[in-house]
Amino acid sequence: MTATTRLHGIFTPNIVPLDDRGRINEPELRRYTSWLIDRGVHGLYPNGSTGEFTRFTVEERRRIIEIMVDETRGRVPILAGAAEANVNETLDACEHYHRLGVRAVAIVSPFYYKLSPESVYAYFKAIGDNSPVDVTLYNIPMFASPIDVPTMTRLALECPRIAAIKDSSGDIPHMMRMIAAVRPHRPDFAFLTGWDAAVMPMLLIGCDGGTNATSGIVPELTRKLYDLTVGGRLDEARTLQYKILRLFDAALYSADFPEGFRQALGLRGFRVGAGRQPMSDKQQVQLGALRDTLACLLAEEGFADEPVGGCDADPSTGTVHGNVDAIVQGVLAELKRRGMA
Amino acid sequence: MTATTRLHGIFTPNIVPLDDRGRINEPELRRYTSWLIDRGVHGLYPNGSTGEFTRFTVEERRRIIEIMVDETRGRVPILAGAAEANVNETLDACEHYHRLGVRAVAIVSPFYYKLSPESVYAYFKAIGDNSPVDVTLYNIPMFASPIDVPTMTRLALECPRIAAIKDSSGDIPHMMRMIAAVRPHRPDFAFLTGWDAAVMPMLLIGCDGGTNATSGIVPELTRKLYDLTVGGRLDEARTLQYKILRLFDAALYSADFPEGFRQALGLRGFRVGAGRQPMSDKQQVQLGALRDTLACLLAEEGFADEPVGGCDADPSTGTVHGNVDAIVQGVLAELKRRGMA
Amino acid sequence: MTATTRLHGIFTPNIVPLDDRGRINEPELRRYTSWLIDRGVHGLYPNGSTGEFTRFTVEERRRIIEIMVDETRGRVPILAGAAEANVNETLDACEHYHRLGVRAVAIVSPFYYKLSPESVYAYFKAIGDNSPVDVTLYNIPMFASPIDVPTMTRLALECPRIAAIKDSSGDIPHMMRMIAAVRPHRPDFAFLTGWDAAVMPMLLIGCDGGTNATSGIVPELTRKLYDLTVGGRLDEARTLQYKILRLFDAALYSADFPEGFRQALGLRGFRVGAGRQPMSDKQQVQLGALRDTLACLLAEEGFADEPVGGCDADPSTGTVHGNVDAIVQGVLAELKRRGMA
Amino acid sequence: MTATTRLHGIFTPNIVPLDDRGRINEPELRRYTSWLIDRGVHGLYPNGSTGEFTRFTVEERRRIIEIMVDETRGRVPILAGAAEANVNETLDACEHYHRLGVRAVAIVSPFYYKLSPESVYAYFKAIGDNSPVDVTLYNIPMFASPIDVPTMTRLALECPRIAAIKDSSGDIPHMMRMIAAVRPHRPDFAFLTGWDAAVMPMLLIGCDGGTNATSGIVPELTRKLYDLTVGGRLDEARTLQYKILRLFDAALYSADFPEGFRQALGLRGFRVGAGRQPMSDKQQVQLGALRDTLACLLAEEGFADEPVGGCDADPSTGTVHGNVDAIVQGVLAELKRRGMA
Repeated sequence: MTATTRLHGIFTPNIVPLDDRGRINEPELRRYTSWLIDRGVHGLYPNGSTGEFTRFTVEERRRIIEIMVDETRGRVPILAGAAEANVNETLDACEHYHRLGVRAVAIVSPFYYKLSPESVYAYFKAIGDNSPVDVTLYNIPMFASPIDVPTMTRLALECPRIAAIKDSSGDIPHMMRMIAAVRPHRPDFAFLTGWDAAVMPMLLIGCDGGTNATSGIVPELTRKLYDLTVGGRLDEARTLQYKILRLFDAALYSADFPEGFRQALGLRGFRVGAGRQPMSDKQQVQLGALRDTLACLLAEEGFADEPVGGCDADPSTGTVHGNVDAIVQGVLAELKRRGMA
Repeated sequence: MTATTRLHGIFTPNIVPLDDRGRINEPELRRYTSWLIDRGVHGLYPNGSTGEFTRFTVEERRRIIEIMVDETRGRVPILAGAAEANVNETLDACEHYHRLGVRAVAIVSPFYYKLSPESVYAYFKAIGDNSPVDVTLYNIPMFASPIDVPTMTRLALECPRIAAIKDSSGDIPHMMRMIAAVRPHRPDFAFLTGWDAAVMPMLLIGCDGGTNATSGIVPELTRKLYDLTVGGRLDEARTLQYKILRLFDAALYSADFPEGFRQALGLRGFRVGAGRQPMSDKQQVQLGALRDTLACLLAEEGFADEPVGGCDADPSTGTVHGNVDAIVQGVLAELKRRGMA
Repeated sequence: MTATTRLHGIFTPNIVPLDDRGRINEPELRRYTSWLIDRGVHGLYPNGSTGEFTRFTVEERRRIIEIMVDETRGRVPILAGAAEANVNETLDACEHYHRLGVRAVAIVSPFYYKLSPESVYAYFKAIGDNSPVDVTLYNIPMFASPIDVPTMTRLALECPRIAAIKDSSGDIPHMMRMIAAVRPHRPDFAFLTGWDAAVMPMLLIGCDGGTNATSGIVPELTRKLYDLTVGGRLDEARTLQYKILRLFDAALYSADFPEGFRQALGLRGFRVGAGRQPMSDKQQVQLGALRDTLACLLAEEGFADEPVGGCDADPSTGTVHGNVDAIVQGVLAELKRRGMA
Repeated sequence: MTATTRLHGIFTPNIVPLDDRGRINEPELRRYTSWLIDRGVHGLYPNGSTGEFTRFTVEERRRIIEIMVDETRGRVPILAGAAEANVNETLDACEHYHRLGVRAVAIVSPFYYKLSPESVYAYFKAIGDNSPVDVTLYNIPMFASPIDVPTMTRLALECPRIAAIKDSSGDIPHMMRMIAAVRPHRPDFAFLTGWDAAVMPMLLIGCDGGTNATSGIVPELTRKLYDLTVGGRLDEARTLQYKILRLFDAALYSADFPEGFRQALGLRGFRVGAGRQPMSDKQQVQLGALRDTLACLLAEEGFADEPVGGCDADPSTGTVHGNVDAIVQGVLAELKRRGMA
């Protein structure tokens, strides 16, 4: 494989709409899949963190991929989240998704237990040596055992099947260290960022694209950010990156992930249903305020109606946005201090 | 229920022996179950972290409980780890284990995603209000979303079915805060520590018992530590607690958890098989040294043969132990600095 | 030196009262010093974290020690906090305090920069080899570079002048690991805990005493806790430890440390003055509530008058305490999540 | 003040050369000051973290500023680090440096104690309202209490004297959030990054410049990186940013900060003397290897001679660099895991 064929562009880690009984809403998932493709995302990434893969059963995870592959009909490549309970189960999933024709699988680093780098290596080595399909490493140190630079380098040099990394740390020098270590030896290896807040600078220092939750709710904007940045139109790209940051922060920090993104998708006209993680009465009430915030941000771009109470015209001085930003900043500061953001 | 019937004593979070093909080794699991009961543990706790519940399939987790309930034949109470992918699946497991006759289930706080206290509350509230069997909260902030004192207090006061907490934080004042907040209102509510390094002081400040991995490899000692402490024989208890600390540190910090405990169980004469988390060649080599360390510690108590190279007679000055302790301390210091221990 | 002469008992890390112009209030500091001695503390520990050593100038730090040595007139031993900007300045302070006749100095691990264990070793080695007076290592990983077990062991074995460690981590197994590593070789080496929340269990596993901020506001109770625990009256000790935990939590988590302890000392009848860390208007208002909480806790023991609004008779159900505990628990949970407690 | 006059460009946080007796080496400090100015840095920043301000006495800190102001003779603006033990002492320093004619002072957030946002606000508010000279907030959450976005926004809106922030978190979205919150209201407020690893992307998302330790050892390169980036020559800028990242990583992670930078400055021909933080024998030996690494990196640019053993021609495959990179990556991975990088 050559550098020109490596994975690139915006892959959407899609939400899974649920029906009134909490089951996968297949018609809505199909409609959503085609809606994303129509709005220009380069690929799809089902069973990611945004897709709440841990909250579905083995059978449901397979069904999600099957539905989306069928609906996509080869229009865009699919990165299938394939992590299961252990290496054998994961390899079974890799084989199944390979038969379905996905472009690659994505495997999150082992979670729950905090593994040493040597164990993370052994885990991915066992998968990389036996998978029939290209493997994307998925590094998300906030949730799972970290994949450090020496470990990912070792895996990239030893396992041709391991062909990309999705990194959601949001740490730009970390991404640069990985690119510096691997690209000279593996020009086909792709680097994707999972941190929507920094897509533009990540692309500018050499990333190939992103798997970004915001592209699941404003695919038009995330795609445009990619095009503007790789096209060198930096002033426009910067302005758009700041907009996406506001939306990302509002969706990410105003409710436990990924509920903010589910609510935003609802505002785009999809029936997402109640999530699988239960909410307390207090949280139900807070959802209304979150929806208003998101509606105002989406309304600025013409993607949703303003909420009943209206939105302020000038974000930098306004009451609605002012308050909303204050809330988001407060929560964010809190999470920062907790080491969670 | 009254204070006299609350859960108490040492519950063993048991390892699951595997056969040559990586499947549950049923005969060895049965033999291990009875061996533990014969050596005096007060109860069993299958599908805990030591039992690697995340590395088994749904079907395997059920099978493990079924085998152990059958083998136990009511001789000791069973705390069944019942966490599944979401609330519905978890409640299905609770019902199944209830029908099997377990004393209670244990549910770890949601992991992978880092949930807010309000979400942790909503999750356990949904389970506590609907489970047909007593529920033990399982707080292990190293691996899962923390259950803080206000949240556990709220759950204890609202949900009669929630009847205990297993806390693996190892933080004594944290345990005291929970006891101070809940015990006046729920004399039947049990507090169990999962931190083997502090069983004696935990019991002395009011804990009811522990679910301790060391009890799976030296059940004689952990049981004796409990008896000496509650019997007020503090000098003997202290000496034993220091011994258990050395063994706990050696098993916990010399390999990725719970591999050290699996190796120690092998030294007690059980065929545990290769673990499900793969090991690199380097790790395979290191296992030999770990086994020697553990063998020396177990040999001191007459629980295993000394390794071929022998052990030093005086632990405080010796070469073998000296080196071993240095290695363990080094790793431990490292983990401390990483915030993982 | 032998085990019988090693440091032991409760050393008070005292607050420094300030006058209306923010200067050291010498008469009040003298009165406070004698008040503490009269109430039974075994020793004094000026220029500790509670004493806000970083907020005084070099000259003020020296003056504080001089005043207290003079006032004490040898009635109790003094541990003098002697950390200055670098090794040379620190050694100058050690010499000065030695001439004044202090029992030992206490040196906090280097802070601001996060040093590696090897640098922490080199720092204390340079001090330990050149100090004319006994040195107490001060480990407070929340604020300063951690002193890990291998490093403190190495220092204890190499430097006879290093004669004690004050550990404020509150981690009991950590304390046990230090004791196990050092005591066989240095019976004269003392282990003191700085974590008031766990004095009783720390003493029970082998600690020699504590340097505890609560002893600066309720010296009667902290001394009694020590006596009851070493005297084997565990039921009474446990009850008292729970009381001290409540007071400690209230003072520690309701305002930025050590302001809560300063306020409590004010309630005991000392003019502490405004602190050197400025407070916002909002914080000034919150102080009133904090004082009421502390007054209620102190009034239970007859150490202060109840606040004007009164206190609830039954702490476990009451409104005042109930609310107060809820606030404290909320703040504490927050800090826990931030990794700061 | 208007946007055109706000602080911008590269400010060097300079090292302080010491003589054989560990005192400030004034002639060498003067030579170094002019050398930096001659090589194009936009300004100087004495008494920063790189300048080890905590390891000097009050008098020495003042002397450093006096020497550098005198040597600079107004050729470039000076940002004087002015943090002292408390608000009063700090304001005294502000007044002194103001009389000397510095452009602004820089005040690090309170350290040792971990302050709440409200206390951080109160501290800077007291300084911002009373300083006679412009104040730069200095946020370095790795070492000091964090200054979060709401707090810095509040300070920027309330205190005209607070005119800039130096942020060393290296977090790009965090910088964007600050810029989005403050710039519409304070066009004169400057945003400087202290994270050399990300100068190019920081400038591209709106930063005004940086205070970068690498500019103290390769001022030619850091200045060129600034010029290339603001001039839109992104391909060249990117290549240079990767080079600076390698040098930054090598200097930052191969020894306790800022010793690597001190060694590199020695290789540029300055007599830096032994540092004030003592080193163990083992660390002394490791310094030789660190110097060789740095010499190879500097020799690539013609800034130093190759070490005696030579350097490898091709960094991506070579033995010397390969080994060096492996060591750096290993240490870095370690620090990452410890949450320190």
